[in-house]
Amino acid sequence: MGSLPSFDAGYAGIASALFDQVRALSRDGPGVTRASYGDVETRVLARLARTAAAEGIATSYDAAGNLWMTVPGRAPERPGVIAGSHADSVPRGGNYDGLAGIVAGLVCAIRMCRERAPPERTFTTVAFRGEESAWFGKPYLGSAALLGKLTDRDLALKHRDTGYPLRFYMREAGADPQRLVRGEPLVEPRSIAAYLELHIEQGPVLEDADRPIGIVTGIRGNFRHRAIRCIGTAGHSGAVPKRMRQDAVFAVADLLSRIEEAWDEWLLNGHDLVVTSGVLHTNADTHAPSIIPGEVWFSLEARSGSQETLDGFHRAIAAECESIGAARGVRFEFDQPIFSAPATMDGALVELLAGICAERKLAYMRVPSGAGHDAAHFANAGVPAAMVFVRNQRGSHNPDESMLIEDFMLGTDVLYAAVRAI
Amino acid sequence: MGSLPSFDAGYAGIASALFDQVRALSRDGPGVTRASYGDVETRVLARLARTAAAEGIATSYDAAGNLWMTVPGRAPERPGVIAGSHADSVPRGGNYDGLAGIVAGLVCAIRMCRERAPPERTFTTVAFRGEESAWFGKPYLGSAALLGKLTDRDLALKHRDTGYPLRFYMREAGADPQRLVRGEPLVEPRSIAAYLELHIEQGPVLEDADRPIGIVTGIRGNFRHRAIRCIGTAGHSGAVPKRMRQDAVFAVADLLSRIEEAWDEWLLNGHDLVVTSGVLHTNADTHAPSIIPGEVWFSLEARSGSQETLDGFHRAIAAECESIGAARGVRFEFDQPIFSAPATMDGALVELLAGICAERKLAYMRVPSGAGHDAAHFANAGVPAAMVFVRNQRGSHNPDESMLIEDFMLGTDVLYAAVRAI
Repeated sequence: MGSLPSFDAGYAGIASALFDQVRALSRDGPGVTRASYGDVETRVLARLARTAAAEGIATSYDAAGNLWMTVPGRAPERPGVIAGSHADSVPRGGNYDGLAGIVAGLVCAIRMCRERAPPERTFTTVAFRGEESAWFGKPYLGSAALLGKLTDRDLALKHRDTGYPLRFYMREAGADPQRLVRGEPLVEPRSIAAYLELHIEQGPVLEDADRPIGIVTGIRGNFRHRAIRCIGTAGHSGAVPKRMRQDAVFAVADLLSRIEEAWDEWLLNGHDLVVTSGVLHTNADTHAPSIIPGEVWFSLEARSGSQETLDGFHRAIAAECESIGAARGVRFEFDQPIFSAPATMDGALVELLAGICAERKLAYMRVPSGAGHDAAHFANAGVPAAMVFVRNQRGSHNPDESMLIEDFMLGTDVLYAAVRAI
Repeated sequence: MGSLPSFDAGYAGIASALFDQVRALSRDGPGVTRASYGDVETRVLARLARTAAAEGIATSYDAAGNLWMTVPGRAPERPGVIAGSHADSVPRGGNYDGLAGIVAGLVCAIRMCRERAPPERTFTTVAFRGEESAWFGKPYLGSAALLGKLTDRDLALKHRDTGYPLRFYMREAGADPQRLVRGEPLVEPRSIAAYLELHIEQGPVLEDADRPIGIVTGIRGNFRHRAIRCIGTAGHSGAVPKRMRQDAVFAVADLLSRIEEAWDEWLLNGHDLVVTSGVLHTNADTHAPSIIPGEVWFSLEARSGSQETLDGFHRAIAAECESIGAARGVRFEFDQPIFSAPATMDGALVELLAGICAERKLAYMRVPSGAGHDAAHFANAGVPAAMVFVRNQRGSHNPDESMLIEDFMLGTDVLYAAVRAI
């Protein structure tokens, strides 16, 4: 590994150009919007495929609509290596979330082609569709479909804006939804030697620690309710005394405050846990400052590295709803929660990545991933999986997300070395 | 008064027909929608005017677009009596809120005409526009305009759905906004001997006490913020540890829980107070279950019979926002609050109404009005004002609001007797 020269400066230019082209396709106000299985996502994949093809890289789409960009190995009969990440974004999110991992893989493939240095194992960069749960409530749709984990119920998930089902959007994007729910993976997990994913960190830990690179040890799982409904009784805000009210807003405020208190306690008790209610609203058709709110909808998501913690906290929330409902004369209607299992990264791959960093004298650290990633699906399907985090600025899932191209190239260098070493 | 016979059964039929006609004009799902200074409100006034004209009642519109339906008195030189209420409704509200008082006045006028029994003083029923704050944030627009209390700033208030200013809607409705903000009343308060308003109670107090009639002693004032904005920092829900978050939803939940606690304390300390946050929402363009919410908007309204209580509670809320902002790294942006002063009903009129009820052996009680009413403007302009409440079922400001026509006719009977006695 030590003998492998780093990327020369020209590749940073190629990466920057790719980031700019995709940003231009998906610009939305100050950020970018690339909806899962939407038109912009489709155009982004087509753009990446054209670049790959121009470099002599073979491109194809699988039945889930994911883009495969492949450099044949010198030993094509051996299980291959996949580098992947996702092409979609949250609404008005940042440009690097997901895209960075695809561009990293593609830049590695371009280098292999330009330097006429094919890897030992066939190397494929996969641009996944539909990783962001923001659009259909469930994350990792493209990789779930690839691994035979998509269900009929998933195909019925409704788009956040239009209410149309995932099935519809998949067909529009050229995927074959009926094939995807047979429970058969589109690729045999045993035919994959390793799944590697470069991703921006999406949090402040690396930036705080002044390390450009993180090596992921595990990926948090989560449960997610897209829309819990609290039902009280509407009424004239002036005419109903406090003791006779069934006010859905005060009930939900109380619930969220209790959930936050419980969260603090669970942290004190050593649990890994983050909790978010990102969507909250009264009924826009009927609400008014002078009407006691009769309904409130809110999303609720918890993430943890431990399935036990997730299950326990889910039960704790249900108990709080029960107690608040009884005390306030409101009731809570729960939607079907969506669960994603936590995942552990492959020990040997983690050591390989750490070794590469050490040898290159890169400032790196091992970190758990708070966010979910397609890599979790591969790990849970038995594919050795690992992730390289690149530090980023100003968070993620917001239009101000940022990343230094120098840091990105350090991560791409680690990825390249790993692909060639496996 | 004792000699005055009650309404014969035919008048209940007239009232029911009027309620049905107006409901048909304004039906919206299970309820009715009559927006302040909107088209439906205009059509409702036109319908009422046609009925009045057919009965020989003189009709006209003032510069604020309010409908006047007048029966000349035997002593037209003496200050007249006005019975009024409002024609608009909250979005998907009930049919009787406001309309009941107009129909009551109109039925009294119809009786005077049919029985050829003009009252001593000229008797006018006024159908006000724009009483509901749901549409422009401020209540009592039609009566404020009538009494010269509308300001230039009021004309700039934005419609909840379209964002167009009140000025625009007033012009569309045939009113003359420029004239209204001169600070001159359209009618001289000293020319009004009494303002009487029948209204459904909009609360459960009469129903609970099994009394069909309430006599209002005072009307609560209020302060109202239509949209306070809490600004935190958006971010990936999985990637930012709790201590580094600036989560606007948990901040607002905390604030509302503290406000509710303070409300309980103020009630224990004997204050008259109700508090409502009827509108609450994250940013629909960017929110998602997996994004830490960076902004929340919420309305906040408090009502009390005491101006001191309102001022004190307003200060207490500001202090809570300050403290939560400092503790959580969020900040609160306040919109300009709208204030309505509390009002006291005229003692002599209250005694007159109570005497009429007693004489008729009606089960009645004296009650403060939790809701605001046009009557407050008259009282605060120095016009002797009083209100008759009719018990109603299933609250108000919701489509399930209900009222018995028998109870309504009891109230109309009290109104009729009072108009003739003043």
